[in-house]
Amino acid sequence: MSDKLKNKNSHIENDPTYKGLQVNSGISQPPSINPKILERLKKAKRKKYSVDDYVKGILNGDRAILSQAITLIESSKFEHQKVAQDIIERCLPYSGKSVRIGITGVPGAGKSTFIEAFGKHVTSQGNHLAVLAIDPSSERSKGSILGDKTRMEELSVDAHAYIRPSPSAGSLGGVARKTRESLILCEAAGFDTILIETVGVGQSETAVHSMVDFFLLIKIAGAGDELQGIKRGIMEMADAISINKADGNNIHKAQLARVQFQNALHLFPPSPSGWTPKVLTCSSVEKTGIDIIWNTIMDYCSHTQQNGYFDQRRSEQAKYWMYETINEQLRDGFYHQDAVKKQVADFEEKVLNDEMSSFVAAFKLLNTYFDEIKKK
Amino acid sequence: MSDKLKNKNSHIENDPTYKGLQVNSGISQPPSINPKILERLKKAKRKKYSVDDYVKGILNGDRAILSQAITLIESSKFEHQKVAQDIIERCLPYSGKSVRIGITGVPGAGKSTFIEAFGKHVTSQGNHLAVLAIDPSSERSKGSILGDKTRMEELSVDAHAYIRPSPSAGSLGGVARKTRESLILCEAAGFDTILIETVGVGQSETAVHSMVDFFLLIKIAGAGDELQGIKRGIMEMADAISINKADGNNIHKAQLARVQFQNALHLFPPSPSGWTPKVLTCSSVEKTGIDIIWNTIMDYCSHTQQNGYFDQRRSEQAKYWMYETINEQLRDGFYHQDAVKKQVADFEEKVLNDEMSSFVAAFKLLNTYFDEIKKK
Repeated sequence: MSDKLKNKNSHIENDPTYKGLQVNSGISQPPSINPKILERLKKAKRKKYSVDDYVKGILNGDRAILSQAITLIESSKFEHQKVAQDIIERCLPYSGKSVRIGITGVPGAGKSTFIEAFGKHVTSQGNHLAVLAIDPSSERSKGSILGDKTRMEELSVDAHAYIRPSPSAGSLGGVARKTRESLILCEAAGFDTILIETVGVGQSETAVHSMVDFFLLIKIAGAGDELQGIKRGIMEMADAISINKADGNNIHKAQLARVQFQNALHLFPPSPSGWTPKVLTCSSVEKTGIDIIWNTIMDYCSHTQQNGYFDQRRSEQAKYWMYETINEQLRDGFYHQDAVKKQVADFEEKVLNDEMSSFVAAFKLLNTYFDEIKKK
Repeated sequence: MSDKLKNKNSHIENDPTYKGLQVNSGISQPPSINPKILERLKKAKRKKYSVDDYVKGILNGDRAILSQAITLIESSKFEHQKVAQDIIERCLPYSGKSVRIGITGVPGAGKSTFIEAFGKHVTSQGNHLAVLAIDPSSERSKGSILGDKTRMEELSVDAHAYIRPSPSAGSLGGVARKTRESLILCEAAGFDTILIETVGVGQSETAVHSMVDFFLLIKIAGAGDELQGIKRGIMEMADAISINKADGNNIHKAQLARVQFQNALHLFPPSPSGWTPKVLTCSSVEKTGIDIIWNTIMDYCSHTQQNGYFDQRRSEQAKYWMYETINEQLRDGFYHQDAVKKQVADFEEKVLNDEMSSFVAAFKLLNTYFDEIKKK
């Protein structure tokens, strides 16, 4: 019978023993994914660029390759990081030839619509614009900033603009470093104007400020907002403040706010750039005042390029990022070591319950860490 | 003749051969240091306290031993640090029972005279006061802050007050950590009120704020000073602001400033402590308003002890210092390693001259560092 079962109609009921029974063989389930697409995806996966390919592609302005290279930068895999660093190193000589602009403002100030209007103006002047972002909250909110490209409808389809959302994983330090690395690749790819957006919450501003030439604060006029929303540290960083939504019934309020800010800025110590911060008004909807902001940035650049501050600041920033990267990596290595991970919660608990001093806990964890490293 | 020379008048001219010549022996030079004192100093040096001695001495309120223990904390020698950590660990269960008050203000606000007047008031209430300091500039100025105890003439001889200048060496992080460790010993020694003074320059305030229960900002009224001198971040930390020098012709100005600050504080978001910051006036010279400040601090303590914020904040601070110590030690270990020290200037130079990316320089230095550690 076993032999008989092995015939092509292997249903037991079709065996002659069960004469009179007849079971048709069913049709096989169709594949759930189109096999032709699967094949194509496999091929795409198989295509691995070399560092040479990446660098060549980036220098040719190939956005697909630029995007893939930035994905490598954002990857946490060691082998990706190694390739990414090689790419950055090779692109470095072609970078630096752009104006780097930081933009911040509290949520609701209208940053996205401003960037849409401002970006269109920048590209209309024949410039190539890349928009990057640092969003420290993106891990929680899954990248609210720039994630919604529909808020930049026109700019996102502009042939001269490239929009890249904030890297979404890791500490602020890590995210900021990745954005600065991406900036280098964007410049090598020929973008001559880089916008870096962030939200007005404090720490991320310092990170953005340490990688841009010009720092723009977007504000709106409104009840109490003139003082309420300002983090003084952020105002001190600003090379210009623009009161957004200066349209319709809002115009008068915006102009009043402009005067208030202008007065407040007088109380600050002078900037080492020798530049007096400007306060402007604009409307992203009516597209007024946008050109003046752009011209102000151009004025700033020629002013600081003449007095040497522009280059001096870029050097200082490069130095800052060397030390910042070291500190970030030291912390990262420590807190991600398995031996430390196992103990840290327990020690924290003991410190919180006053069973161990903060310093003894710290030194014990450090001993664990270094013992483990030496073992390897 | 040699025999003859060996007599007690060993001058050759006194030999009978030279009859008629007579030289008196001079008196020997007296020792430049009193030998009895030298002996006493030697004994003092030979006296080495054990950890037990230190802990016993501190718990008995012996100031000489407390001071020596703090000197161990401030020492950079490894063996001193080890002893210091043991002492702290043993004192920890006896610490915590004090009110920790941070005091800041720009140079010229009259902090020293305020502390003199305030301190005298505190001890007159039967309290035991320890005054510590964090002065990030002390390495340069060799401890200007509190170094000049003559500015606290009365307090420095008060039997219930103990004044210790800022540790003078190391990074702000290191200095701050040492101050926090000293604070634990002072509490164990029975001081129930701890003042930690610093200057109004930004970073050191954050350090002080992270180790005190109550943060007091000393201001003076004066032309433009109401806004000019304020670092908003510092004002946000303050649980009370006191306008000092409210005496003589200054009273009206001080009261005006008080109203301005009170208004400004309304614009700040509410504190998690549920406490509304108070603005007060005082005169350190006329000793007016000092008692009100002390009563305000007492009010704050009972308010936050009732709603649980007091203990919660102390736990958070302990946790903060555990992580802060880890980060500081990681940086310290890196930048003090010989192999890193040799290369870091060269790499910085290359980064400044755009010959190497910040990130590559950082990663190369990190490799050097970890390779060196693994060798040991």
